[in-house]
Amino acid sequence: MIDSGSWARSAAETLESVRRRRPLVHHITNQVVMNDTANVTLQVGARPVMAHAPQEVEEMVRAADALVINLGTPTYEGLEAMARAGRAAGETGIPIVLDPVGVGATELRDRAAARFLDELSITIVRGNGAEIGILGGTGGRVRGVDAVEAGDVAESVRSLALRCDLTAVATGKRDWLSDGERTVVVDNGHPLLTAVTGTGCMVTAVIGAMVAVEADPLLAAAAGLVCFGVAAEKAADGARGPGSFRVAIFDALYALTPGQLIASARISSPGGGG
Amino acid sequence: MIDSGSWARSAAETLESVRRRRPLVHHITNQVVMNDTANVTLQVGARPVMAHAPQEVEEMVRAADALVINLGTPTYEGLEAMARAGRAAGETGIPIVLDPVGVGATELRDRAAARFLDELSITIVRGNGAEIGILGGTGGRVRGVDAVEAGDVAESVRSLALRCDLTAVATGKRDWLSDGERTVVVDNGHPLLTAVTGTGCMVTAVIGAMVAVEADPLLAAAAGLVCFGVAAEKAADGARGPGSFRVAIFDALYALTPGQLIASARISSPGGGG
Amino acid sequence: MIDSGSWARSAAETLESVRRRRPLVHHITNQVVMNDTANVTLQVGARPVMAHAPQEVEEMVRAADALVINLGTPTYEGLEAMARAGRAAGETGIPIVLDPVGVGATELRDRAAARFLDELSITIVRGNGAEIGILGGTGGRVRGVDAVEAGDVAESVRSLALRCDLTAVATGKRDWLSDGERTVVVDNGHPLLTAVTGTGCMVTAVIGAMVAVEADPLLAAAAGLVCFGVAAEKAADGARGPGSFRVAIFDALYALTPGQLIASARISSPGGGG
Repeated sequence: MIDSGSWARSAAETLESVRRRRPLVHHITNQVVMNDTANVTLQVGARPVMAHAPQEVEEMVRAADALVINLGTPTYEGLEAMARAGRAAGETGIPIVLDPVGVGATELRDRAAARFLDELSITIVRGNGAEIGILGGTGGRVRGVDAVEAGDVAESVRSLALRCDLTAVATGKRDWLSDGERTVVVDNGHPLLTAVTGTGCMVTAVIGAMVAVEADPLLAAAAGLVCFGVAAEKAADGARGPGSFRVAIFDALYALTPGQLIASARISSPGGGG
Repeated sequence: MIDSGSWARSAAETLESVRRRRPLVHHITNQVVMNDTANVTLQVGARPVMAHAPQEVEEMVRAADALVINLGTPTYEGLEAMARAGRAAGETGIPIVLDPVGVGATELRDRAAARFLDELSITIVRGNGAEIGILGGTGGRVRGVDAVEAGDVAESVRSLALRCDLTAVATGKRDWLSDGERTVVVDNGHPLLTAVTGTGCMVTAVIGAMVAVEADPLLAAAAGLVCFGVAAEKAADGARGPGSFRVAIFDALYALTPGQLIASARISSPGGGG
Repeated sequence: MIDSGSWARSAAETLESVRRRRPLVHHITNQVVMNDTANVTLQVGARPVMAHAPQEVEEMVRAADALVINLGTPTYEGLEAMARAGRAAGETGIPIVLDPVGVGATELRDRAAARFLDELSITIVRGNGAEIGILGGTGGRVRGVDAVEAGDVAESVRSLALRCDLTAVATGKRDWLSDGERTVVVDNGHPLLTAVTGTGCMVTAVIGAMVAVEADPLLAAAAGLVCFGVAAEKAADGARGPGSFRVAIFDALYALTPGQLIASARISSPGGGG
């Protein structure tokens, strides 16, 4: 049993820390949601920089406090940029967050994810249940970039965390996260998130901002999930559909207070009441 | 004279079918409106996947129920990806929708459109009146990506349909569509659509979702035009300008009911009262 | 001392001229804000075309009334396209607006900006205070793409304008602009602009529309700053945060009237009361 209250307070402190320190988060990300991921990074209090030319990413990432890489629209050049930036991030010791969008759908994505997990010091992987199951070796099936079969997500996050020595996060109806020793569940969020493209990528971006200032990746990931999930809950109030909901998420993230997080965070142990 | 009521009911059934079957629609599309086209695909009930690396598109499209290709921001690699995906789509027999954005403006776009019409089994082409006129050989003039002179659109859609054995759709103040034998007009939509970038690409995306489940391309195209047009009409209620209008389109597409389509569809024969 | 009233009237006339003439503005711009820059171009009354393949940009720009190039997400191909389009724009004599996003952050950006300033006939450069200071040789420091130290902005715009024979614009809490002889300050805008990604790129796009129809670059730049700043002020009324604020900017730009500009423009001489 974890102490839910202390996790919620930690999330609130992490948010405050992001706003005070304004970390620079370098994204090499997919082209579909690039504007949204930059915006959520900014609105949670960090500074986004999106730069993906192989020629400049090493220099850019050396100024950054965290690196986020995302396989949503892989290209040969983009993957090369991620590899170079990832190595430079490893040298400077900043955390790396990987979003393995669509792993399981094509060989290009499978090989890229495997290569990054093998060669880079990935700190956190955030995917849907199927993506995490596939990477964790516990199974899963995707169609395009959607999970259609996710298996035992509790086992998947733990397995991937142990196998690759990182923190694994599987988001879905419930969000599961594990660093191999500790496994927790976050139950914030809203069903409308599935009706907006790229909300998974957005939560990855928010986690990137958190891990830029919080040294414990599991706490950072939990903080990111809670921030985004609580913002989504606030945003759903008064939303008339996925369009106005998305706009309201940006508003809610920007307005999010530590008090709201403490009041609304739903973090618990897998089996227990928290 | 067509039976307007039966076309409207068909559009309603196609929308229901998309929502029930959730087809996977693979887009290789322009970078300007990629987020919006993914979102409308999702909100109408289908699953979008945007993937454009030549190395993975064949594998991705083999899992898909329809392919949408769009010339809005052509690159050498992107066009190569469209050609490869198009051939693979032809092999698996799924429909292909082509949006020839800016054809007539540059040789790169002219050659790409000609090549795709020649080499691929295109099912539907959706463009503005000038683009369809240029492809149909009936004339037209574009400036940038806008139609400035469209000629006789009724003749253009019919001519292109016959010439290339496909369904041609020219959107504008009125939307014209023809499969060479049948020509119909759709009068849904709203003038504010011209004040938002990429609404043509969005309607192409919606047509892609419809043709993934409806075997008659003309019915599928009509369903897409009606869905998007009726959503735009609903969205215009209470919009304060093109920004809030765009947000409301996403809300309206998601909330669209078969009953709304039947009540609001305006499909008719070219000369007649439907 | 400038005559503020006559500058405001000029801004209003420039907006009217854009709406009457509907100039075609060719953008080769960053991928993060491409949709927003296309939308603001359209909503202010111009026609945007986003085309960045080296193979087609020369042909496209020859049809255009202005060219906007933006270093936000540089790639080897994109920079080559900007160079080619820039040379063609120089041949046809249309104005070029350069947005040197993140200059000072990487060598790739530094070299690209230096090359463009050297080889192309740049008409207007619009950046933040640090970017303009770096290019003007008066100093400045960026972190990622944010200014963290801007130096004496009044001196920076004048220095860059004289050094490169162009109009320099540094936006920030106050906007400074100079053509080397005349220096003016624009005080429109709203603090929420810093909470939305790419508002700098958006104002550059609006300036691009203005300089397409107004031959005096300083007047054109002032008109762009006033249009975007006044729209932002209107948009902030009733905004619930950066998400709804951004949507409202699109609405406000589209609805902007010459009368609003004359009533709300805040243009003055650096030291004086205008």
